[in-house]
Amino acid sequence: MVINPSALLELGNLAGVVACAMTAALVAGRRKLDWVGVAVLGCTTALGGGSARDVLLGHHPLSWVAQPWLLVLTTVASLATIPLARVVHRLPITFLVVDAIGLVAFTVIGCSVALGLGHGTVIAMVSGVITGCVGGVLRDVLSGVVPLLFRREVYATVSLLTGGLYVGGLALGWNHDAVMLGAMAFGLAFRIVAVHQQWHVPTFEWREPESRD
Amino acid sequence: MVINPSALLELGNLAGVVACAMTAALVAGRRKLDWVGVAVLGCTTALGGGSARDVLLGHHPLSWVAQPWLLVLTTVASLATIPLARVVHRLPITFLVVDAIGLVAFTVIGCSVALGLGHGTVIAMVSGVITGCVGGVLRDVLSGVVPLLFRREVYATVSLLTGGLYVGGLALGWNHDAVMLGAMAFGLAFRIVAVHQQWHVPTFEWREPESRD
Amino acid sequence: MVINPSALLELGNLAGVVACAMTAALVAGRRKLDWVGVAVLGCTTALGGGSARDVLLGHHPLSWVAQPWLLVLTTVASLATIPLARVVHRLPITFLVVDAIGLVAFTVIGCSVALGLGHGTVIAMVSGVITGCVGGVLRDVLSGVVPLLFRREVYATVSLLTGGLYVGGLALGWNHDAVMLGAMAFGLAFRIVAVHQQWHVPTFEWREPESRD
Repeated sequence: MVINPSALLELGNLAGVVACAMTAALVAGRRKLDWVGVAVLGCTTALGGGSARDVLLGHHPLSWVAQPWLLVLTTVASLATIPLARVVHRLPITFLVVDAIGLVAFTVIGCSVALGLGHGTVIAMVSGVITGCVGGVLRDVLSGVVPLLFRREVYATVSLLTGGLYVGGLALGWNHDAVMLGAMAFGLAFRIVAVHQQWHVPTFEWREPESRD
Repeated sequence: MVINPSALLELGNLAGVVACAMTAALVAGRRKLDWVGVAVLGCTTALGGGSARDVLLGHHPLSWVAQPWLLVLTTVASLATIPLARVVHRLPITFLVVDAIGLVAFTVIGCSVALGLGHGTVIAMVSGVITGCVGGVLRDVLSGVVPLLFRREVYATVSLLTGGLYVGGLALGWNHDAVMLGAMAFGLAFRIVAVHQQWHVPTFEWREPESRD
Repeated sequence: MVINPSALLELGNLAGVVACAMTAALVAGRRKLDWVGVAVLGCTTALGGGSARDVLLGHHPLSWVAQPWLLVLTTVASLATIPLARVVHRLPITFLVVDAIGLVAFTVIGCSVALGLGHGTVIAMVSGVITGCVGGVLRDVLSGVVPLLFRREVYATVSLLTGGLYVGGLALGWNHDAVMLGAMAFGLAFRIVAVHQQWHVPTFEWREPESRD
C-alpha cells in the first residue's frame, strides 16, 4: 500500500472538522444552548478558521460554499454530540489527539492556500495560524467568554511552529510531502507534550496604579 | 389593482430593516449606550445579516454600499427610537409582526441572492438563514450577551423553514411568485404561532463530572 | 525643507498603528492574557479597522497582506509593551495625542480608499469611521467587554467630523492636501479638547416596565 500524503492531509482536515464541531457542541451544552445554537456553534468553530482566512485573503468560493457537504458533516457531528456527550467526555485523550491532528492539518492547509495565492512566508504562516485558531476564537466570542487562545495552552504556538516548519522547509526547496508530514508530526508531538506537561505561554499581567479605562 | 410580489418583498425588507434597527436601539437603551452606540448597533443589526452573506459569498458591492440611503434609513430609525421608546414598547404585537415580516423577507432575499450566484439548495438555504439571523447575533455579541438565537425562540427555525419552502418550491419548478409568497406566509404564521405558544427548540445541557475548560 | 502631506499621512498612520497595538497590549495585560493574546489583540486592534473596511468594500489585498511588515511592526509594538507598560502608562498625554493622530490618519485613509474605489460621500465617510473605529470595537469584543466606542468618549464623533470635513472639502473641489491637513488638524484638536473637557455623547437609557428580552 502506498501512503498518499495529500489524502492523509484531507483525512486530518476532516478529523479536525469533526473534532472541532464536537468540542464546540460540548461548550454549547455547558452554556445550555438549544439545538440551533449547538449546530451553529459547531459549524462556526469547525469552518470559521478557513472562512476567516478566505475572506481576509479574498479567496472565493469558501470551502463550505464549494463543498456544502462540509456543512452537513459539521451539523451532524455537532448534533450527534448531544446523545454522545458522555462518551465524548470519557475519551479526553482520543479527543486531544484528534483535535491536535486537526490543528496541524488546518495550519498546513492554511499555509498552502496562501502560498498558492502567491503570498510570501509571513502571510503564509499567518494564514496557517488563522486557519488553525480562529474557529476556536469565534466559538469563545459567541459563547461570551474571552478566547481561550489568549489565555491558556500553546494552541497558537503549535500552529505557528507547524506553519513555520512547513513554509520554511518549502522555502528551502525541500520535498513537499516530506516537509508537510514532518511539520505535522512535529506539531502534533509538540501539542501533545505541551498539554501533558502543562506548558503555558507566559502571561502579561498589568494593573495600573489608579483605575482608568 | 395588481399585486406586485417583488414590490411586496422589497417592502417586507424595508419593514424588517426598520424593525431590526428599532429593536436594536431598545437593546442599546437597556445597556445605556450613547447615541453613537445606538446608531451603530441599529445599523449592524439591520444590515449585518445581508453583509455577512455577501462577504461570505464574495458578492460585491454590499447592499448598503450600493444603496447608501439604507444606512441613512437605519440610522434615522435607530435614533428615532430614543424619543419613541415608550411608544415602541407599547406596540409589542405590531413589532413582533413587523419583525417576523422582516425575518421572512430577509430569508427569501438571502436564498435568492445565493441562487442568483449559481449556488445549490444547501447554500441557498444557509444564505437565507445567515441573512435572516446574523444581524441579531452581531447585536448580541456587540452588547456582550450570548446570542439569543442560540438560546431561545424559534428564530432560526422559522428562517430555515421559510428558506426550505422557497428553495424547495423553486427546485420543483413551481411559479416563483407563488412559492415566494407561500413560503413567506408560512414562515410568518409559524413565527407568530411559535411566539404565542412559546415554542422552543430543545436545549442541550451538559455538565461534566469534574470541571475542565 | 518641503512638507510632504502624504508622507505626513503615512507617518500618522504608522503612529496610529503603533499606538493602537500598545494600548491594546495594556488592555490584554489588564485581562492577564498570555503573550499570544497580547500579540493577537495588538494586531487585531491596530489593523482591524482597515481590514474590516477592505473586506466590506471588497478591496483586496488588505494592507497587511500586501505589506506583511505591518504585522511584524504591530507584533513587535504589542510585545514591547510588556516590559514598557509602566513607561507607557506614565505618558498618558503623549499616548492620547499619538492615538488621536492615528484616529484622524486612519479616518482620512479610509475615506480616501472609498473615494478611490468610486464610492460617494456617505460611503466614504462610513469607510473612514470603520477604518478609525472598528479596531477598538474588535479589541473590546475579544476582551469580553461592551465596546467602549458605544459607551463613552467622542471617538466615533471625531472620526465622523474629520471624515466629513475631508470628503466635504474634496466634494467642493478644494485643494486635496489643504483639505486633508485641515480635516486632520481639526479632528486632532477636537479629540484632545473633548478628552480634556470630558465631552460625552448623550446616553440613551431605557428600562421597560416589565422584564422582557
